[in-house]
Amino acid sequence: MNQLDAIFSPRSVAVIGASTMPGKVGHDIFENILKGGYTGTLYPVNPSARSVLSVRAYPGILDIPDPIDLAMVILPPKLCLQSVDQAIQKGVKGMVIVSAGFREVGPEGAEIENRIVEKCREAGIRVIGPNCLGVINPLASVRLNASFSARMPKPGNVSFISQSGALCTAVLDFAADREFGFSKFISIGNKADVDELDLLRYLHADKDTEVIMIYLEELRRGREFIDEVKEITSGDRPTPILVIKSGRTGAGALAAASHTGALAGSEAVYDAIFKQSGMIRVESIDELFDFATAFAYKNLSSLGKLTKKIPSGNRVAIITNAGGPGIVATDMTVSSGLQLARFQPDTLEVLASHLPQTANIHNPVDVIGDAAQDRYENALSAVIRDEGVDGALVILTPQSMTNSLGTAEAIARIARKTQKPILCCFMGIVDVSKGVRYLQENGIPVFKFPENAAKSMGALYRYSKWLNRHFLAQFTPKYDKQRASEIIQACIDAGKTTLGELDGLSILECYGFKTLKTRLAQNAEAAADIAAEIGLPVVMKIVSPQILHKTDAGGVMIGLETLDDVRAAYDRIVFNAKNYSADAEITGVLVQQMATHGEELILGMNRYPVFGPLIMVGIGGIFVEVFQDVVFRLAPIQRNEARRMIRSIKGYRLLEGIRGRPKADVTELEKQVVSFSDFVANHPEIQEVDINPILVHPEGQGITVADCRIILKTGSNPH
Amino acid sequence: MNQLDAIFSPRSVAVIGASTMPGKVGHDIFENILKGGYTGTLYPVNPSARSVLSVRAYPGILDIPDPIDLAMVILPPKLCLQSVDQAIQKGVKGMVIVSAGFREVGPEGAEIENRIVEKCREAGIRVIGPNCLGVINPLASVRLNASFSARMPKPGNVSFISQSGALCTAVLDFAADREFGFSKFISIGNKADVDELDLLRYLHADKDTEVIMIYLEELRRGREFIDEVKEITSGDRPTPILVIKSGRTGAGALAAASHTGALAGSEAVYDAIFKQSGMIRVESIDELFDFATAFAYKNLSSLGKLTKKIPSGNRVAIITNAGGPGIVATDMTVSSGLQLARFQPDTLEVLASHLPQTANIHNPVDVIGDAAQDRYENALSAVIRDEGVDGALVILTPQSMTNSLGTAEAIARIARKTQKPILCCFMGIVDVSKGVRYLQENGIPVFKFPENAAKSMGALYRYSKWLNRHFLAQFTPKYDKQRASEIIQACIDAGKTTLGELDGLSILECYGFKTLKTRLAQNAEAAADIAAEIGLPVVMKIVSPQILHKTDAGGVMIGLETLDDVRAAYDRIVFNAKNYSADAEITGVLVQQMATHGEELILGMNRYPVFGPLIMVGIGGIFVEVFQDVVFRLAPIQRNEARRMIRSIKGYRLLEGIRGRPKADVTELEKQVVSFSDFVANHPEIQEVDINPILVHPEGQGITVADCRIILKTGSNPH
Repeated sequence: MNQLDAIFSPRSVAVIGASTMPGKVGHDIFENILKGGYTGTLYPVNPSARSVLSVRAYPGILDIPDPIDLAMVILPPKLCLQSVDQAIQKGVKGMVIVSAGFREVGPEGAEIENRIVEKCREAGIRVIGPNCLGVINPLASVRLNASFSARMPKPGNVSFISQSGALCTAVLDFAADREFGFSKFISIGNKADVDELDLLRYLHADKDTEVIMIYLEELRRGREFIDEVKEITSGDRPTPILVIKSGRTGAGALAAASHTGALAGSEAVYDAIFKQSGMIRVESIDELFDFATAFAYKNLSSLGKLTKKIPSGNRVAIITNAGGPGIVATDMTVSSGLQLARFQPDTLEVLASHLPQTANIHNPVDVIGDAAQDRYENALSAVIRDEGVDGALVILTPQSMTNSLGTAEAIARIARKTQKPILCCFMGIVDVSKGVRYLQENGIPVFKFPENAAKSMGALYRYSKWLNRHFLAQFTPKYDKQRASEIIQACIDAGKTTLGELDGLSILECYGFKTLKTRLAQNAEAAADIAAEIGLPVVMKIVSPQILHKTDAGGVMIGLETLDDVRAAYDRIVFNAKNYSADAEITGVLVQQMATHGEELILGMNRYPVFGPLIMVGIGGIFVEVFQDVVFRLAPIQRNEARRMIRSIKGYRLLEGIRGRPKADVTELEKQVVSFSDFVANHPEIQEVDINPILVHPEGQGITVADCRIILKTGSNPH
Repeated sequence: MNQLDAIFSPRSVAVIGASTMPGKVGHDIFENILKGGYTGTLYPVNPSARSVLSVRAYPGILDIPDPIDLAMVILPPKLCLQSVDQAIQKGVKGMVIVSAGFREVGPEGAEIENRIVEKCREAGIRVIGPNCLGVINPLASVRLNASFSARMPKPGNVSFISQSGALCTAVLDFAADREFGFSKFISIGNKADVDELDLLRYLHADKDTEVIMIYLEELRRGREFIDEVKEITSGDRPTPILVIKSGRTGAGALAAASHTGALAGSEAVYDAIFKQSGMIRVESIDELFDFATAFAYKNLSSLGKLTKKIPSGNRVAIITNAGGPGIVATDMTVSSGLQLARFQPDTLEVLASHLPQTANIHNPVDVIGDAAQDRYENALSAVIRDEGVDGALVILTPQSMTNSLGTAEAIARIARKTQKPILCCFMGIVDVSKGVRYLQENGIPVFKFPENAAKSMGALYRYSKWLNRHFLAQFTPKYDKQRASEIIQACIDAGKTTLGELDGLSILECYGFKTLKTRLAQNAEAAADIAAEIGLPVVMKIVSPQILHKTDAGGVMIGLETLDDVRAAYDRIVFNAKNYSADAEITGVLVQQMATHGEELILGMNRYPVFGPLIMVGIGGIFVEVFQDVVFRLAPIQRNEARRMIRSIKGYRLLEGIRGRPKADVTELEKQVVSFSDFVANHPEIQEVDINPILVHPEGQGITVADCRIILKTGSNPH
């Protein structure tokens, strides 16, 4: 038996701090459990009352003569600590601490919270909270409403985890309005012990949970979270997870010295975590419920999670009795990444034979305003058999002949016989309520507006793509970690924190990056010698710790074609630099091979305290800031993730060769992204990296680093 | 008295085709008017019934002894035509034709529809329909429910126009669920006579209408629509118009020979019309209602439209009793183009003195879960007085001490005293219903979720910016229209439809465009002579009617530095071209001046049948297709619109000079966009134009056309 079972399905519950005063949390929670129809036994603990709501009270938990599975604690922090000792002594198996006043109010509260968790861990007891709204299990065999909410939701197959107590109440209200049922409902509060990952694991194993909804404000585990959740969302028994995450836009961004850091902020980390773990991010609570409705849908005639109705492709048939909503559905279908199915000739023939002449038999099928249920049944049955259709949207708007219940029954009959998802939109709230109720009772998703149905179908399809993603054989990149470490260490020893091209390129070369030949010259003659050696034409750039914006200082000259040009350029650059800043120390001038043409990308990294290195790939050069067409993943990543990452850049089309341009060497780019991931994973001393631009040459010609910047952690002490 | 008053506020109504059989449209509409409590007199017309629903019936409209304002016609098309004659003879003042079977079923129906409209126009009668669901005026003095809908909406100050009958029913249901009231409700059907522009004018003048919602499928007027609607949305008595428009994504796009045409499709025209006329486009029906709720909001203590609560800036204060929803609101506030206000020291001091220590007095203000109404009142009253605050969002989630009614009363007290908008989100549906109802009754917008409230505030702010937009003095561009016409005519006479650079550049020069010197050479020596004349280096390009993709044919060479290079290039290009296509006719080779550096934009036009020329500006070159960062407007446009257009390109930042690049010559670009608008307006023979790229040089250095393509209408006959 899972430790958390004691919390969600206890045989007995003691409410420590149960109160006789209505309005007090200790009273209300006790009342909610009692009146919710809890199927186990409930014991109030209160040293000064004989009974609470007519139920015999006990002065302490140790006075209860029977074994206790779950202790609900509603006491101020210090008393809470004492009662935890007693609960442990009593042998409780799980604990929910509702009370506030812990970590969230300051260090003293945090101290008490830590001690409680320590004691419980020692005793092998799991704790939910503190500072939470409690837990609910509406299933008939338990009916435990151990929460603030007077409202007990209906039982269902969706579980909800919330980091915000306030949102819990609103979600319960909203669910009641939609007749939406829950399997487990958990307010995680400060998550001192049990956190979202523990619960995701538990709910994944829970046979009553088909879909998990989660409201997150922050995560405290990164890599581990991704690895485990990926298994939950796409392993042997996949459970879809819908996540709604808030974070102050922009405000969360850390001060960053690189483009990557500036573009990443804190939101990019979460987006990467959700993408890499296969969680489906939703934008609003409406969408959360819409998608949950679609994902909870399964074939009634069969059992178990594997029968979930996920479309195997993106070709959607639409059936409507009104033009307008059909257009809305079509628009949203296309903008959700789906496409309108083209029907096969047989399907069209069947549609034509069953529908009146004025009907439109092509997709979207219009059965016309005066359609009764027979037209819907014939049309839906025809399109759902079409091999070119992966799912259907059925739209009904109340008109004179409309029979919403009859149509709902017809849809349910067809739905029972197919594995393809059928999502409905019955547009009236009152006139069509009989049909809506019938669909809901029969587990067929029904939405208020066509756009919501189409968007939900899009989410089902995206999940289907996630489940059916390909796995390429991994690359086995070769690199010289040892040498890279030595160069980095030398920089640390020299007190450098921002490494320019010379050091940066040497480090990247250790990881297989092709770079431009670059050498430092300290006089005009040396510059000419270097240019002769690496080959003309060359580029020259000033090197001075005081000059960050080389171009502004007149410190960059390109396309130098002769050795005389090179000599002259040396003197001109040094002159310009001194002119720009009289105090500037001139280290010398870089002489660099000219780059051959390639698409300009950016490859970067920014490191986060808990989550580690976040890798960025996107369109580089000057366009980085303007279009912000970049994609993030937490390292380490392998070939498959690197490929998905590159392909999800909007400007990926530039790499595919459009308008007569050659295809770019994407395979080499994938390889180097994997190497880069290993690179940043291997060297925790590196805080940020920008490789901008990295030039992706035509197929077979590889990629070249044209410029780079590496920033070391300021705490990296020389040793 | 406006002609449409006879339709919306008739003193008497005859229902022609009133039926005694329940379920028939002629019965149901009659019943809806009768039972809706119509304050005028109602007459059923039916040749074979003595009475309909106990009301004395007349065999024909001419048999009615009293005058009739409005005739509601529910008859098959042919009978309809006869009854129109009689109605005209009777002297009715308005007509609503509900019946279907007209234009929408084919040419025969269209013919009858046209004849009906002709007759009515002659008689000075306005007609709504046919093929519509009727009209509703819920105001107490009229209470006319002349529609299919058994449900009469509540009276309110929002009017709704719908081109889809089906959507009407759904919207009425939805409104009932939200306690949302209407002023006028119109299903326009085939809009044979009265169309949306007639109704917008009427509703703008209507003192009971504060906000107009409209569902559109297509428009039949372009320029005129823009010019008149602009006055409605921002003239002396501005009325906000919310529009929801559907169009099959992509499917609407016309086959186009230019980039502009391909990118525009049909949706871009509508987007341009809405932007230019100041209509607010919404994406879903939820959003339509949310925004209407916000726009309908006005100060109860005052009268008239001018007191509408529109924020004068974008600085928003948020007050919440729970962290989670506060974060959600903050996110959406920022992503809706607003910003969180920074409070002044005085405000902070007042907040600190009224709120508990654990509260957050900085924006978003958290009054903490146990807040009763006093904390809300104190906090809201403090922030709304802050000069740095333009509006407030108040979020309430039901918790133990929450008093939703008391808080609503407090909010209303403060709202009465301020011109700043206060939008609320009371998150529960049931627990907070008393407060929600109080807010609704007091005209204060209240939303279900914080994101909806924040988004609606964003819409108010965008409207405020539209109302307060600046007007620059116009440019007075000079151009040689005569010469352009001559060149175009010469091309038409020569049977050309696609004009390449030589003709295209000459035409554009007439409109003040700076172009690259370009001449055609027909042998190597001539090429060298031209190059010597226009100055080295040059670019050379093949000219052949059979070669469209010059680069693919090896027909372009750039950076030719010497006259020998030019001669050699001539031969090489001709050789390549013949190699590429043995049959290609070689007109010659263009010798063109090399362009100096500039930002690459695209400027284009695509002409539409009803709407005329649609102008496009955006990021050009290879990025056009990838980022599709382009903006559209219907020509003609003037300086102000040209400026707004250019500034709304995402990549506008490239023109502002980022990362040490020079600022681009945006003023010159604005001027040339206005010239371009005149150009396409002056020459209707031109079907499409792509100027790609047009190079925008640094400030003061103007812009240059680097390449162009002009496509003439295929129907342009030589004369």
